[in-house]
Amino acid sequence: MMKQFHEDTNARISAPSGEAAVIGTRKVYVAGSRPDIRVPMKEVVQRLGDAETCEDGLLKIHLYDTSGPFTDPGASVDIRTGLSAMRGGWIVERGDSEILQAPSSEYARQRLERHRQENYHFPSLRVPRRATQGGNVTQMHYARLGIVTPEMEFIAIRENQRRETLPDLLKKQHPGDARGASIPGIITPEFVRDEVAAGRAVIPCNINHPESEPMIIGRNFLVKINANIGNSALSSSIDEEVEKMIWAIRWGGDTVMDLSTGQNIHETREWIIRNSPVPIGTVPIYQALEKVGGKAEDLSWEMFRDTLIEQAEQGVDYFTIHAGVRRNLLEAAQRRLTGIVSRGGSIMARWCQAHGCESFLYTHFEEICEIAKAYDVTFSLGDGLRPGSIFDANDEAQIAELKTLGELTQMAWRHDVQVMIEGPGHVPLHLIQENMELQLKYCHGAPFYTLGPLVTDIAPGYDHITSAIGGAMMAWCGTAMLCYVTPKEHLGLPDKNDVREGIVAHKIAAHAADLAKGHPGAQARDNALSKARYEFRWQDQFALGLDPERAMGIRRALLPDDAESKEQYCTMCGPDFCSMKITRSLREGAVCGKSK
Amino acid sequence: MMKQFHEDTNARISAPSGEAAVIGTRKVYVAGSRPDIRVPMKEVVQRLGDAETCEDGLLKIHLYDTSGPFTDPGASVDIRTGLSAMRGGWIVERGDSEILQAPSSEYARQRLERHRQENYHFPSLRVPRRATQGGNVTQMHYARLGIVTPEMEFIAIRENQRRETLPDLLKKQHPGDARGASIPGIITPEFVRDEVAAGRAVIPCNINHPESEPMIIGRNFLVKINANIGNSALSSSIDEEVEKMIWAIRWGGDTVMDLSTGQNIHETREWIIRNSPVPIGTVPIYQALEKVGGKAEDLSWEMFRDTLIEQAEQGVDYFTIHAGVRRNLLEAAQRRLTGIVSRGGSIMARWCQAHGCESFLYTHFEEICEIAKAYDVTFSLGDGLRPGSIFDANDEAQIAELKTLGELTQMAWRHDVQVMIEGPGHVPLHLIQENMELQLKYCHGAPFYTLGPLVTDIAPGYDHITSAIGGAMMAWCGTAMLCYVTPKEHLGLPDKNDVREGIVAHKIAAHAADLAKGHPGAQARDNALSKARYEFRWQDQFALGLDPERAMGIRRALLPDDAESKEQYCTMCGPDFCSMKITRSLREGAVCGKSK
Repeated sequence: MMKQFHEDTNARISAPSGEAAVIGTRKVYVAGSRPDIRVPMKEVVQRLGDAETCEDGLLKIHLYDTSGPFTDPGASVDIRTGLSAMRGGWIVERGDSEILQAPSSEYARQRLERHRQENYHFPSLRVPRRATQGGNVTQMHYARLGIVTPEMEFIAIRENQRRETLPDLLKKQHPGDARGASIPGIITPEFVRDEVAAGRAVIPCNINHPESEPMIIGRNFLVKINANIGNSALSSSIDEEVEKMIWAIRWGGDTVMDLSTGQNIHETREWIIRNSPVPIGTVPIYQALEKVGGKAEDLSWEMFRDTLIEQAEQGVDYFTIHAGVRRNLLEAAQRRLTGIVSRGGSIMARWCQAHGCESFLYTHFEEICEIAKAYDVTFSLGDGLRPGSIFDANDEAQIAELKTLGELTQMAWRHDVQVMIEGPGHVPLHLIQENMELQLKYCHGAPFYTLGPLVTDIAPGYDHITSAIGGAMMAWCGTAMLCYVTPKEHLGLPDKNDVREGIVAHKIAAHAADLAKGHPGAQARDNALSKARYEFRWQDQFALGLDPERAMGIRRALLPDDAESKEQYCTMCGPDFCSMKITRSLREGAVCGKSK
Repeated sequence: MMKQFHEDTNARISAPSGEAAVIGTRKVYVAGSRPDIRVPMKEVVQRLGDAETCEDGLLKIHLYDTSGPFTDPGASVDIRTGLSAMRGGWIVERGDSEILQAPSSEYARQRLERHRQENYHFPSLRVPRRATQGGNVTQMHYARLGIVTPEMEFIAIRENQRRETLPDLLKKQHPGDARGASIPGIITPEFVRDEVAAGRAVIPCNINHPESEPMIIGRNFLVKINANIGNSALSSSIDEEVEKMIWAIRWGGDTVMDLSTGQNIHETREWIIRNSPVPIGTVPIYQALEKVGGKAEDLSWEMFRDTLIEQAEQGVDYFTIHAGVRRNLLEAAQRRLTGIVSRGGSIMARWCQAHGCESFLYTHFEEICEIAKAYDVTFSLGDGLRPGSIFDANDEAQIAELKTLGELTQMAWRHDVQVMIEGPGHVPLHLIQENMELQLKYCHGAPFYTLGPLVTDIAPGYDHITSAIGGAMMAWCGTAMLCYVTPKEHLGLPDKNDVREGIVAHKIAAHAADLAKGHPGAQARDNALSKARYEFRWQDQFALGLDPERAMGIRRALLPDDAESKEQYCTMCGPDFCSMKITRSLREGAVCGKSK
């Protein structure tokens, strides 16, 4: 079966490309100050009817691109060998890390042993790397030393999206209401460094994930989104998860969390990381629980520590750590309508209850920092007590945990470990701003990474929408990254289609927030798309959309013949009732009031 | 073919019921002060594990129900005869209207003549009714005379959703941020009257649509949503449109607009109205344009007037009138990125241009009021200059038109004609509040009825989501009704599935706004659903959701055996990783810190 996986999946994914590119776009690379800084973007080229907008009538728009080499017809990808190590040279040349002869984790060594008997392991394992004794390889550490890394320069180029090349018409935008964000007109590498040094932004990039294309999460940058994938005991195999990752980044996932809880977690993760151009996050306690057969009371610091090292040496870029679920908060959580809905939170609560003592995540947090800084694993401090219903929103347990996360943030920062803070959950619209304000206050400006929030509980089957509504509002208020929610939330694990729906819904929310904040250049894509729409350039319109294939598919189904792209009306209105057609005819005629 | 329509459609719709009811709910009628006031609600009955919440352990929740007799297994509906005239007696007993011997509209008489040759006419036509000479039959007129009509009492019962019967736990909710709304704890018939008299709310209920179940649109009531249906020259037939209407109200459409522009508009509308328990709105200029073969310049006041009367006597409950598209605003609209995107607006702009004079809708507005008050047709003053892109949002043309709509509102109110104001369109999140404030200021508190707004232009194929985000925000700020947008927006006409997606997305937005405003009792449904979720009462959870069938279908597909409903975990987490399961086990154990 796994044999089949290797051959089939690979055949599908690295199929003779061209088809692999997203319709209407082509992959380009923008060069940085050195030849190995090549920032991928999706370029959309459009021939305009008027020469007014650009001199040569050719409009080039560059879109932020998360999809990696999978959408580059010029790249050949073999998922059995993984992506090339773009950051490899940068990591080596810093001279502050060393190659290990064997994994430091006992569990990882055991799995390596088992590989001889089983055929689902990743065939081209990398040797792990770690900071030299007492060293610190985090981007925050470099930033605080005043160093601009290639990663930071890469990010600056990426965030700007070449907006300096846009014609004036497309640059026009509403001033926005930044709500406390301070976004410069042009993102410089130095600005990236400053934000990372201040803790207001993170660059999740483990030195064992050199395949990743650097990206940044912070309120003064474009709002990002995360997609969760991962198998459970009930469903899904390694190949499906790799496919979901590739699928998620195709539609715009900026990071991917592998939340696997079923079999072969270690191997599933290896396949995903080796093929992922985006940062990979995990919740290590899930695997730890798997190792003790699902019995939370059997967890221990020692085996959890081994799990952290195992994952850090595989290249996980950020860890969710539920260290804020403290023993003294559990009584408040018990009074809730829906208790503890975070898996990690409930696991730790059970452990605390069984042992009658403080969470080992909290008591050993300093040691966790030591591990994180040896690989540059970013913390995503988990909100184990996030509200699972509107009823429980912004309650005592949630806010008390947030304060603890703030303390832990400062502890991590003392180690120059990068930190973001996870947020709710279920929150009604009018409490979202308060949530954000409390996070900023208690967590000292560390980036907020929120799950939605869902603004109502009453829509099972449509929670990607309840979450997109809350997410747009939350991101406008200052959240730096939105965790997607799919239509299967509360019901089951998402399949590929759910992943696409969830991603696009949250890309909408993220972009809506960028527009509302007045993010420089954010409106250019809207302007270009609307201009294409108004000029009946259907293909151009679709190429600029978040999902060109879906939009084109809808139109093709309605107007199946080849003539469709030339029609000067939409199928919604029909030829006589198209408002845009009528308005255009007005322009061609005399201006009203001057004709008689 | 039409023969087949009658038989097939009818067979499907009045199929031996039980199946017709929405899963987990049953239709009940709440009695008013007189036996013919029977307010339909969806009742959800749940047996709770604990007796804490309600004494007998039985929880009854009543949900607002728009679906009409189609979901009542006890009702037999034959779409060839239409629904029964629930309001018939109320209209007659007021003694201020009379039956007409023939339609007053010349066009309607012509169509009647043609019925002898064609077989797609509605078989059980009603005779039209009109106010007696010089009379006024609007709900606003009665309200201003201090009369509480049965419609108003019906609405009061309906809006309260029997929340007085709820157990205390479910009544708990966040205070909300009403943003200027003043919603009483209990809606009384007198409060309904006061709001209608003040113009802050409308009850669209043409005396020629006695089949309708009264409902109210105003910012101090539950937020409503509208679904657009209607054929175009390119697609769709009468039976499809009737089906879409029934489908739209099944999922929660509070009103339906028939935007047909293709063939047989008159007959399509008749079938829809005779079978609709919700108010039907139209844009009469569409039909008028159809009558002149699509040439806007050939429109005239006389034929438009005849069209208004034709539709008013069929029972249309509200008319979109684009009387704010004035000649002097067209130059500003020409400077836009996307010109005029309202169909009605562009038609009138072309007419103004061709004739070089002021819009006949504006110059004849007083006469339009005279027609409206003879039948109680509510005005929905169209925003013909709404922005069609983020670029054009809140621009000069839009705001100037809004001021004109405010003038027209006052003119209509002098005739006691009910008015709501249509709103955008495409607006970035941060300009939504400004939009609402300007509407309140210029339009004197008349209810706002907005299309979304869409908070970005870049998501063709997903605009139900861009619209739900803006709609939630707009409704929180005070919009009384949201016009839905479907995934096909900008691309084509919605099919049945699109209607469902669009409705549910906007029900989410409307409810999110009710929660944010702190609408009394709004959170009860969330509380009950979350309680069921936490207690693994899967069927109970689904019954309280906006789309029980979708949610149940997802779960069944993942756990197909009969045992599914008893499983104490979700398929998302699997048996060992379900946070709710773990947390519940915490409660069963000792409280943490007390055990050792």
